[in-house]
Amino acid sequence: MTQAQIGVYGLGTMGSALALNMAGHGFEVAVTNREIDWIAPFIADAGDLAARLHPHNKLADFVADLKTPRVILFMIPSGAPMDMMIDQITPLLESGDTIIDGGNANFHDTRRRSKTLKDKDIHFVGMGVSGGEKGARHGPSMMVGGTEHSWHQLRPILRAIAATYQDNPCVDHLGPDGAGHFVKTVHNGVEYADMQVIAELYGLLRYGSAWPPSDIGKLFEEWDKGPLKSYLVEITGKVLQYTDPFSGHAVVDVIKDAAGQKGTGRWTVVEAVRMGQSTNMIEAAVGARAWSAEKETRQEMQNHFGGARDWFTVDPGVLADAFLAARILCYAQGFRILDAASKEYDWALDMGRIAEIWRAGCIIRSALLDDISEAFADQPPHSQLILSPKFTETLARTIPALRTVVSAAVTGGHAIPALSSALNWFDTMRQGFGTANIIQAQRDFFGYHGFERLGEDGQHHGPWWD
Amino acid sequence: MTQAQIGVYGLGTMGSALALNMAGHGFEVAVTNREIDWIAPFIADAGDLAARLHPHNKLADFVADLKTPRVILFMIPSGAPMDMMIDQITPLLESGDTIIDGGNANFHDTRRRSKTLKDKDIHFVGMGVSGGEKGARHGPSMMVGGTEHSWHQLRPILRAIAATYQDNPCVDHLGPDGAGHFVKTVHNGVEYADMQVIAELYGLLRYGSAWPPSDIGKLFEEWDKGPLKSYLVEITGKVLQYTDPFSGHAVVDVIKDAAGQKGTGRWTVVEAVRMGQSTNMIEAAVGARAWSAEKETRQEMQNHFGGARDWFTVDPGVLADAFLAARILCYAQGFRILDAASKEYDWALDMGRIAEIWRAGCIIRSALLDDISEAFADQPPHSQLILSPKFTETLARTIPALRTVVSAAVTGGHAIPALSSALNWFDTMRQGFGTANIIQAQRDFFGYHGFERLGEDGQHHGPWWD
Repeated sequence: MTQAQIGVYGLGTMGSALALNMAGHGFEVAVTNREIDWIAPFIADAGDLAARLHPHNKLADFVADLKTPRVILFMIPSGAPMDMMIDQITPLLESGDTIIDGGNANFHDTRRRSKTLKDKDIHFVGMGVSGGEKGARHGPSMMVGGTEHSWHQLRPILRAIAATYQDNPCVDHLGPDGAGHFVKTVHNGVEYADMQVIAELYGLLRYGSAWPPSDIGKLFEEWDKGPLKSYLVEITGKVLQYTDPFSGHAVVDVIKDAAGQKGTGRWTVVEAVRMGQSTNMIEAAVGARAWSAEKETRQEMQNHFGGARDWFTVDPGVLADAFLAARILCYAQGFRILDAASKEYDWALDMGRIAEIWRAGCIIRSALLDDISEAFADQPPHSQLILSPKFTETLARTIPALRTVVSAAVTGGHAIPALSSALNWFDTMRQGFGTANIIQAQRDFFGYHGFERLGEDGQHHGPWWD
Repeated sequence: MTQAQIGVYGLGTMGSALALNMAGHGFEVAVTNREIDWIAPFIADAGDLAARLHPHNKLADFVADLKTPRVILFMIPSGAPMDMMIDQITPLLESGDTIIDGGNANFHDTRRRSKTLKDKDIHFVGMGVSGGEKGARHGPSMMVGGTEHSWHQLRPILRAIAATYQDNPCVDHLGPDGAGHFVKTVHNGVEYADMQVIAELYGLLRYGSAWPPSDIGKLFEEWDKGPLKSYLVEITGKVLQYTDPFSGHAVVDVIKDAAGQKGTGRWTVVEAVRMGQSTNMIEAAVGARAWSAEKETRQEMQNHFGGARDWFTVDPGVLADAFLAARILCYAQGFRILDAASKEYDWALDMGRIAEIWRAGCIIRSALLDDISEAFADQPPHSQLILSPKFTETLARTIPALRTVVSAAVTGGHAIPALSSALNWFDTMRQGFGTANIIQAQRDFFGYHGFERLGEDGQHHGPWWD
């Protein structure tokens, strides 16, 4: 048997799918897993592909089976397990080998690991993989951060297994060390916000206009044929039309309204704030999930204040325009954070290319990304998508719809944190002169912090100090 | 000359004021400063108090002048300078001595420093000091985190110099290590949000109803006589009535609308999100300051979209009720985060006592804190102020006003991120059944994450997996 071209450690959902995808594209793949009893069933289920899968029970045999310089992909829980595996495998590796972390790691950890392994001339790649199990099996979107050396090793395999959009593989080398994992983190942040916007629009139709879930599903199905086309719209259309086989109700009506979350949405908010930015739509989505988990408090609150949401008739076309405006603002916030991080960490991220990589295979794939990729080709002022000629026109047309929807929802008592955040960001950014002068006056009054005078340089203080 | 009872290192605005405050209360205070040429002028300006101030140019002399076990207060920039000074002074100290960091340090740093110094039996206190220069000189509010031993040393001095409210000093030992700095961080977060709410209300009156600044100032002066009474309302009333001596305009009209910020507002948001919470009003305030700094982008946005804000007449009484509702929600979010941190770090924070400490001396002192302290005495359900009988009635009465104001602002194109966030939190929390079921359905569809069924235990998957 020839040596394997890549090793996959970790045969969970994502690791298995990626290993099969690689074998399916003709690569020889060594595989192993912490629980060794997972290995044989995985091979048994692999059918013809088993011929190119090399199972190993021992880490040393797994490593010895790899062509040098080696490439080893870890698909294991991020955090402590990754550090442990690095410690275990490093003594078995040689100069020039590459370890890839394909999990949702915090990019700060990825930067730390890259630095530590560099001293041993072992290359560490942080790779974001999006698309869920189906994506991983049949074509994921992948965001690679690491050295040129590693990218040279990985390129043929990753380009072969990636999703494609207009014949271009949805994978690229985005920058060094943490760049790939950071881009994946922001991808997930945008995903959070887009999902929250969808949940809010559903709520308006369901509780504001009493549409049955299946009709709302059909509306999403319609939306998936136009400018709102996206994977999340597509699957929302589907899930809303499912009936629960046990109760006969719509499936969504038997699901508890308490959403889970892992790290990436929170990390996006934290990193944005840390860099002096704000992604208030993503924060709204993270917050909404957190509050959804406080179900007992919400039920008691409803006893006190009532949970009534007023009726209002909203034209589905107006709702669609509001959605489009919110989605543009959501992606614009995501790319704004990518721009800030690219500057802070000197990554030189190619925003247009990122939009292309997200165009297929990943959860936030959407028609809008075509426009975004074109918008970046024209270099929008201050790297702000909301100032791109590609979007100013669309926003001018759709913001009134967003305003109508937010206003009606506010009046009617519907919670719409993400849609509100979108509009408030827009309304803040379109005011050349805002109200932060009051804040500066207060800060100078109580803390002698000083302020700038309009049109003058330097720090000044108010007459209250005279 | 007798030995000093406390040493103050750092004669900037806050350090000088605290040293004078201590000397004024009869304490012998050793003082020094990194730039030694600041020391003599400080003593020269101290008048009669100079008799109890012991100036030192050398750190060793400063330490030698202190009664043992020693108490040394550092009022220097937080971060690296504090670590440097710990390194310099530790060799001069003895078992049982206490170092106090009185700056706005990140509580994680305070926890780390406490731990490191503990090995040497040196006690480290993280103390939040609020009230600005005037507060520090004549009575600040102080939040102390550290050991019982240190509190025993500090208690007489701090109780003597603190602000008082109804004869109670606004200082207490809140918990170990980082507890004091964390409470101060959240204090500042609440301050950010309250300031942002005030700026938004100002904007509505100014740009929605064309009130001149001085009239708005007079309205705030009125508000300061009722349930909205607070230091920030008081000073807003004052600053709005000042005229710029150079231009003859209202002072606020010559101040650039670009607000600065340091760490504490951001830290509040970060810690909230990290603990699986959200303080969306504080996030809105942090975001609004960040966006205010992007003035060029805003000006270009205005060229594209116009900065017009529609006229609308709002009854000042309605505005006052909206303000009260928003303020209740803002403080409630702050205390919610304190509760989460208290559980996470095992601090057993006394919420009612914190409200009392904030009642005088600090920037967010307000009449509302009386109600909050009473509300905590009655132990609100789930530690949620919004469920306290003290507030459910007020909220039921004032939320309609907040709704009216937010709705009018949204329709009119006014940016009101903090007011919107307040209402969206409230509307989310009063819905016993929300829309997170959609998010759970999506997550299960694309990632096999599973969901809970209403009224059933365990994880389930949708029929889309059958």
